[in-house]
Amino acid sequence: SAPKSLACEMKEWRWIKFEEKVEEGGERWSKPHVSTLSLHSLFELRTCLQTGTVLLDLDGYSLPQIIDDVIEKQIEDGLLKPELREKISYVLLRKHRHQTKKPIHRSLADIGKSVSSNTSECSSLGEADLGRQRSKNTNHLGHKTSGVFPAAIKFCHPLTALKNKFIKKIPKDAEASNVLVGEVEFLEKPFVAFVRLLQATMLGGVTEVPVPTRFLFILLGPAGKAKSYNEIGRAIATLMVDDLFSDVAYKARDREDLIAGIDEFLDEVIVLPPGEWDPNIRIEPPKKVPSAEKRKSVFSLNEVGQMNGTAGGAGAGSGGGGSDDGEMPEVHEIGEELAWTGRFCGGLYLDIKRKLPWFPSDFYEGFHIQSISAILFIYLGCITNAITFGGLLGDATDNYQGVMESFLGTAMAGSMFCLFAGQPLIILSSTGPILIFEKLLFDFSKGNGIDYMEFRLWIGLHSALQCLILVATDASFIIKYITRFTEEGFSTLISFIFIYDAIKKMIGAFKYYPINSDFKPDYVTMYKCECIAPDPANMTLFDASVPVAPNTTNASLYNAINLTALDWTQLSKKECLKYGGSLVGKSCKFVPDLALMSFILFFGTYSMTLTLKKFKFSRYFPTKVRAFIADFSNVFSILLFCGVDACFGLDTPKLHIPSIIKPTRVDRGWFVFPFGKNPWWVYLASALPALLVTILIFMDQQITAVIVNRKEHKLRKAAGYHLDLFWVGILMAVCSFMGLPWYVAATVISIAHIDSLKMETETSAPGEQPQFLGVREQRVTGIIVFVLTGISVFLAPILKYIPMPVLYGVFLYMGVASLNGIQFWDRCKLFLMPAKHQPDYVFLRHVPLRRIHLFTLVQIVCLAVLWILKSTVAAIIFPVMILALILVRRLLDFVFSQHDLAWIDNIIPEKEKKKEDDKKKKKKGNKGDTLRSDSSPNGSDMDRSITLHLKISCPSSPAFNYSRSPICAVPQVKIEMESDYEDTDTEKPPRDMGSETTL
Amino acid sequence: SAPKSLACEMKEWRWIKFEEKVEEGGERWSKPHVSTLSLHSLFELRTCLQTGTVLLDLDGYSLPQIIDDVIEKQIEDGLLKPELREKISYVLLRKHRHQTKKPIHRSLADIGKSVSSNTSECSSLGEADLGRQRSKNTNHLGHKTSGVFPAAIKFCHPLTALKNKFIKKIPKDAEASNVLVGEVEFLEKPFVAFVRLLQATMLGGVTEVPVPTRFLFILLGPAGKAKSYNEIGRAIATLMVDDLFSDVAYKARDREDLIAGIDEFLDEVIVLPPGEWDPNIRIEPPKKVPSAEKRKSVFSLNEVGQMNGTAGGAGAGSGGGGSDDGEMPEVHEIGEELAWTGRFCGGLYLDIKRKLPWFPSDFYEGFHIQSISAILFIYLGCITNAITFGGLLGDATDNYQGVMESFLGTAMAGSMFCLFAGQPLIILSSTGPILIFEKLLFDFSKGNGIDYMEFRLWIGLHSALQCLILVATDASFIIKYITRFTEEGFSTLISFIFIYDAIKKMIGAFKYYPINSDFKPDYVTMYKCECIAPDPANMTLFDASVPVAPNTTNASLYNAINLTALDWTQLSKKECLKYGGSLVGKSCKFVPDLALMSFILFFGTYSMTLTLKKFKFSRYFPTKVRAFIADFSNVFSILLFCGVDACFGLDTPKLHIPSIIKPTRVDRGWFVFPFGKNPWWVYLASALPALLVTILIFMDQQITAVIVNRKEHKLRKAAGYHLDLFWVGILMAVCSFMGLPWYVAATVISIAHIDSLKMETETSAPGEQPQFLGVREQRVTGIIVFVLTGISVFLAPILKYIPMPVLYGVFLYMGVASLNGIQFWDRCKLFLMPAKHQPDYVFLRHVPLRRIHLFTLVQIVCLAVLWILKSTVAAIIFPVMILALILVRRLLDFVFSQHDLAWIDNIIPEKEKKKEDDKKKKKKGNKGDTLRSDSSPNGSDMDRSITLHLKISCPSSPAFNYSRSPICAVPQVKIEMESDYEDTDTEKPPRDMGSETTL
Repeated sequence: SAPKSLACEMKEWRWIKFEEKVEEGGERWSKPHVSTLSLHSLFELRTCLQTGTVLLDLDGYSLPQIIDDVIEKQIEDGLLKPELREKISYVLLRKHRHQTKKPIHRSLADIGKSVSSNTSECSSLGEADLGRQRSKNTNHLGHKTSGVFPAAIKFCHPLTALKNKFIKKIPKDAEASNVLVGEVEFLEKPFVAFVRLLQATMLGGVTEVPVPTRFLFILLGPAGKAKSYNEIGRAIATLMVDDLFSDVAYKARDREDLIAGIDEFLDEVIVLPPGEWDPNIRIEPPKKVPSAEKRKSVFSLNEVGQMNGTAGGAGAGSGGGGSDDGEMPEVHEIGEELAWTGRFCGGLYLDIKRKLPWFPSDFYEGFHIQSISAILFIYLGCITNAITFGGLLGDATDNYQGVMESFLGTAMAGSMFCLFAGQPLIILSSTGPILIFEKLLFDFSKGNGIDYMEFRLWIGLHSALQCLILVATDASFIIKYITRFTEEGFSTLISFIFIYDAIKKMIGAFKYYPINSDFKPDYVTMYKCECIAPDPANMTLFDASVPVAPNTTNASLYNAINLTALDWTQLSKKECLKYGGSLVGKSCKFVPDLALMSFILFFGTYSMTLTLKKFKFSRYFPTKVRAFIADFSNVFSILLFCGVDACFGLDTPKLHIPSIIKPTRVDRGWFVFPFGKNPWWVYLASALPALLVTILIFMDQQITAVIVNRKEHKLRKAAGYHLDLFWVGILMAVCSFMGLPWYVAATVISIAHIDSLKMETETSAPGEQPQFLGVREQRVTGIIVFVLTGISVFLAPILKYIPMPVLYGVFLYMGVASLNGIQFWDRCKLFLMPAKHQPDYVFLRHVPLRRIHLFTLVQIVCLAVLWILKSTVAAIIFPVMILALILVRRLLDFVFSQHDLAWIDNIIPEKEKKKEDDKKKKKKGNKGDTLRSDSSPNGSDMDRSITLHLKISCPSSPAFNYSRSPICAVPQVKIEMESDYEDTDTEKPPRDMGSETTL
Repeated sequence: SAPKSLACEMKEWRWIKFEEKVEEGGERWSKPHVSTLSLHSLFELRTCLQTGTVLLDLDGYSLPQIIDDVIEKQIEDGLLKPELREKISYVLLRKHRHQTKKPIHRSLADIGKSVSSNTSECSSLGEADLGRQRSKNTNHLGHKTSGVFPAAIKFCHPLTALKNKFIKKIPKDAEASNVLVGEVEFLEKPFVAFVRLLQATMLGGVTEVPVPTRFLFILLGPAGKAKSYNEIGRAIATLMVDDLFSDVAYKARDREDLIAGIDEFLDEVIVLPPGEWDPNIRIEPPKKVPSAEKRKSVFSLNEVGQMNGTAGGAGAGSGGGGSDDGEMPEVHEIGEELAWTGRFCGGLYLDIKRKLPWFPSDFYEGFHIQSISAILFIYLGCITNAITFGGLLGDATDNYQGVMESFLGTAMAGSMFCLFAGQPLIILSSTGPILIFEKLLFDFSKGNGIDYMEFRLWIGLHSALQCLILVATDASFIIKYITRFTEEGFSTLISFIFIYDAIKKMIGAFKYYPINSDFKPDYVTMYKCECIAPDPANMTLFDASVPVAPNTTNASLYNAINLTALDWTQLSKKECLKYGGSLVGKSCKFVPDLALMSFILFFGTYSMTLTLKKFKFSRYFPTKVRAFIADFSNVFSILLFCGVDACFGLDTPKLHIPSIIKPTRVDRGWFVFPFGKNPWWVYLASALPALLVTILIFMDQQITAVIVNRKEHKLRKAAGYHLDLFWVGILMAVCSFMGLPWYVAATVISIAHIDSLKMETETSAPGEQPQFLGVREQRVTGIIVFVLTGISVFLAPILKYIPMPVLYGVFLYMGVASLNGIQFWDRCKLFLMPAKHQPDYVFLRHVPLRRIHLFTLVQIVCLAVLWILKSTVAAIIFPVMILALILVRRLLDFVFSQHDLAWIDNIIPEKEKKKEDDKKKKKKGNKGDTLRSDSSPNGSDMDRSITLHLKISCPSSPAFNYSRSPICAVPQVKIEMESDYEDTDTEKPPRDMGSETTL
């Protein structure tokens, strides 16, 4: 008697967090999207739960038994004719087939099928389902994943579920809710049941993956309404993945609790007008969804199961588009690290105490595949930096400090810092201002007959001492006054310097390898460069018929040859000039190809890195592959363009590293003796220039540290400003003794270091955006980078294949990349955008555009001044100018309101405190009376003690009760308008006030 | 007694189509976004309309009078205490201030204000409003704009509204709805009024721009509920911009009609679950919104004002995410142009009849700024093509046809075609297959002693005749059988050829200008290239001491000089080789810089064009500037890279055009005499090769025509396949007589032509996406392009500054750009995307991925075969292979279901017809019974004549009535479950069935 020949068409959905649907063609889950429901289906679902069977805490161990129980209950309640028992049971217990890859032989079957076209359509619908994770698993950063999973009822093909990759996405302790929906011929009225099991149970093939089922919703109805049933199924499924409703479902004591849960859901629901949105558009899951906690707090209730009271309604109020008015942004917190202890070395002690427990994890957490990319990236940045600064220092100090010193110093200082400092993510490097200082110092010493190395040693020692004094007195606390304004000004400046330098170097290549723009291929015979002997007597030796091929191998032998016996044509350019010859010819000044090749390598590396980085957000390849390519984008582009360079085989400038460890200048050793070369007063006088160095180092170091320790980076292991400065001081003394350059935190490379170590959530529900979890805080990458830098001397044979333009491209990328995420830069871009195209930045919602532009302009002017200073000799007072930035920011307090500054900058601490007090006061005032605390002085004649509260404003309106009592069951009793005057501050608990937005 | 000291805060919204809000900071309209409402506010609004004053067709001429009338009515109805009359009137009549640029002196005031921070916050709210255009203005393409506009009530600053640019966005006959919402101290219950004026009236400063107001919604309430009032205001505003509701509002006879309108709106509303969407996210307006017509049809009602019946509810059903199942895509229509008339020249006659009326407009519609960009772009494409093919033809035919012939032929044939043909958007050009044919023909003629030009003339004449026969017999109708499969295969192939050729040419540059990769800058002295005289005796003349500077100016004099008297060192490379000298030296083989420079120009032009084209979608600069940059992207990049080339001054290959009009070969004239050189039988035999040419021309021409005439291009002026072919035939005969190459439609350039002439809507409501309107169909651009090509001979001095690599870059761009929008290419990309990242293509929702991949694979194999054929001598049967593609497509009918093919390809006509019949049948079957028509054969034992219909399934459920009767006013009467068996096919009109989705 069972309807064996029932034809069927299965539709399958699943919700983990967002809706996924099996596309019409089958075999394919759609992209996860936000469930767009119809209001209708929600009301129908509500009715279903009101009228159907609700079995809570059923002790079911198998699907047949559960279904038996449900049917029994229905018959008991008179909802089902007993003779249908068998049929219903038959339908519900048919084997389920799931959305898994069909075996290949199916596709052959399909071929046959497709010709006979529409024959395989069916009449019954199965609907997929969803579930929810019972106990939330919280990972160490407080990120929560809630899992759900699918199963479907399939009436036709008895195929058992196969395991698939999908199970990875489901948390271990997740529980499923199965929604079985379909239409059958034999029913006259719908068969509805909502079942909660006492214990989550494996129900065999119902779920797509082996996950225990906790909830079961069954809706079988008479034929003809399949779409409507589907919609109801989707509605309950969407409800079950809702954090608040699933709480209700778990805790519900009776049917009424469930209904109340739906009403609550309806209250919070977001409504899109039909004329402005096409329901067929699948809405991509948003970057961020409101957390259940936040939503709960709106309702101000702790026990969802018990809520039948008067609260609620505020959710609806805040559901509107423009309800975030007047909010203040989160307060910028520097953290306790910068509190002034008032004790000697108090800050340092606390830093050590804070960092010590993390020390072991700083090592074992570093072993991760991502570290390799970070190491390669930062390593290349570091050695390029070391070579560049080394070269420049060598020029500036007549090779007292050269590339070799730069390498050793970087390696030593960097690895020590990463090993012991408070913030091992900071990368030390030589910086521009220090270079200028050294240059001025050397010139001064030379001009005044003072021994440079010894003088420098003393300056270093004094400066180190001053740093240690700053550490001991917790002086770093003044960093608190550095707001976003100063931070971003500084880091933008450094980024610009990087970009400027990279481009300058590139343009340099065009000067260094001039292009012969008059070259005509046809007149190749006219272009030559001959070495002409200085003495015309030698002309006799000159024989044009000698083969042109130079005998380069024994070029060095020429040194021994008598000048008169020289074959001048065989001399290289350098040799020719060396022996006093002159170069004559049209091609002497020019170098072919190298400049253009350099440009191609430079620009190619830069744009390749940029492109590969963006590849992360493309649609191609699985996420992991893309993440890998994006993480290693710099490595790939460097390798690629090294390969291009190698293919062409041109003599582009390469990375040349000294291969033997010895001081660049032969007349200096690895230790500078402090006494003997200069008069005694120099030892004391050097304290004065040392002060300048100290300011420079302090500012450079601590601003970078603030940037690195920014809240956005979600660092767990706290900062160590004092400890950092302590080590910078110590290393300064050591470097001074060894005659190595001084090192301080390098902003751009440090930011690049952090960027390459960012972590994101890995497996999350389909459609959920990966969340930024924080940075892989450890010491391993930094240490390895600097150890590698140290042993680069031995890697010279490999590194010499890397063309310099490629490294300049990396530099350019670093500079550009570090501009991203700087709000100042975003604001600069706003100048070019018409208001209507501007992105929806939070501060744009709160601060007038003119004020934002004014603020940005002030910053631009400050930067321009700094840039000019930096480019002149005044560069030495550069760090002082950064202090001036703080002053400028203070002055801005008089131009901009604290409200505006809170959005586009941060509030300066004292003010902040005051502000907080204000806020607290305001909050107090706000309670029960949002109106009056906002009132302007000229509204002061209003009576502040009495406020009107309208409870139900329009007569005969049951709307107020809507969210609590079932909408459609409200008796049409004319509720009299009651407008009670009440002083809310006394009569009502203030936290309920926000929720009374009903009219 | 009026509350003069009322402090206030104004908030302002406006809706034209989408919501815009004045941001908190003021002075700035937010980006238009979809209004996200709360369900609550909609219900509250409903209550307000139920209880407040509704005045329809009020004869008001001014705001004070209207407000007087409203207050009078309220007092009459006992809703307002008479003593409040004055206060209410005072508040509502305060001057309104709008969101316009503040004068500069304000910003100074702001500075003072910002210090005293929160003092200027206020207590009353004004809300902006919206309106709706009464009579819709329809432009020629049927695009509709409905306008609305803003006004606000401002209680504080009496500033009159200023005109602003915003008025441009509002259609001329638009009418406003003003929504005035606020809270006041003196009211105890809300003051609600909905007013419809008999005639739209200017209400002075209420509206932001001078637009007559038709509707007025006023809500003043007691203090403390500002947020709730705001939400209600937003709700009514959103309703008023809804096409259906505003219809209701215009036609409503009483309050009940308005309430019914809201209910209808609620029925269609789209609901987002609160846990999956953050209400603070502003939803960008969608690309396309459901049209009012479509939504109306869902309700199956003509007169909205009269709907109190039982219809409705289907909107809710289709509101779900997956309700588009089973739909078939729109049928691919080729149009009547390809109908087989059966009469002699019937098609041609119809074509002329169809195109003649458009002929004048083909000229005056061409004068538009956009045409200039199109002309420049296509012109450059054409001359590059002409030069390339001219050069190749010259090689292939021993200069019987060369660059000069190519130029003249292109100019003549192209301009004639654009002037008279059926589809002037098609651009004629020489194509690859014809080139190969000419080459084979020339070789054959030479080998067999046949006069090439005369033979070619006869082939041309025969082929022209055959073309005309095809025209006369309407043979073009077979084009109908070319589906997307063939079209896209063909155009992809052509695109690939473009890309391949561009890259091949670029690589050619590296071969033509070899790079000396061994060059070491230091050994520049070793690199030279000397011309060595052939006779060793001349060696004595060779004097190395002669200055190296060549005397190039009198290089031509060398011809006259006795060889022995030659100064060999002064000879250029060519001369040296000419006089038998040999080049000795390391640099002889190499050309510096040119290859790399060419690459930079090539790749730069390509990527610059691509970048600028994308710039249209960036956020920077106003839309018009961006559109301009994007439209002229190719021109800008060509100019930029010509500039770069000029800066470097390198001797890159340039565009060289012959500057005198004369045949490339001196022994031929401009007319080929048909008789005398070949035996008589050649005249007849040439009909055979002519057949091949005819097939080739027919396929090439007509497939391009199909692509150009695609429905996506929204062409208004219809196609003219027969007329096109007629002109191609005529031109063929003319070209044959003049000894010029043959011309046929060029796919890629034609597509580029269309792309550069696309039109989009200009001013539309803020947030509305510009709609593609069609293509600027005219003959002007084409004619000018070819006239310019003709006179290029005189432009040679200017054109010679254009480097060829830049043009190759343009070619590459053309090839790549024409791949866009080809579904086949999109499907190819799917191979690389994991299923979950694939874009939401419609066909992906309906066809299993495996089937799509299989289809794509078949296409790829076909293309590969075609590519191989093209690359061999078999190229001559290339057109025949395209015919084979049609065959392959026919075979695919046996592999894929018609359903799948309908989505990923088109259905072949006969089948299509059958399909349509099927559909009709199915539709009939579907009516009243969606279930059974889908049933599979094994479901045949179901009774088809009786279906169960459940009207109200769950007892005591008022949900069914929800959409008709006010939700909150339903008496809680237990509605008895009525489950009536009824045969819908007889009892109910079938079209109502779809709307009965209520459970």
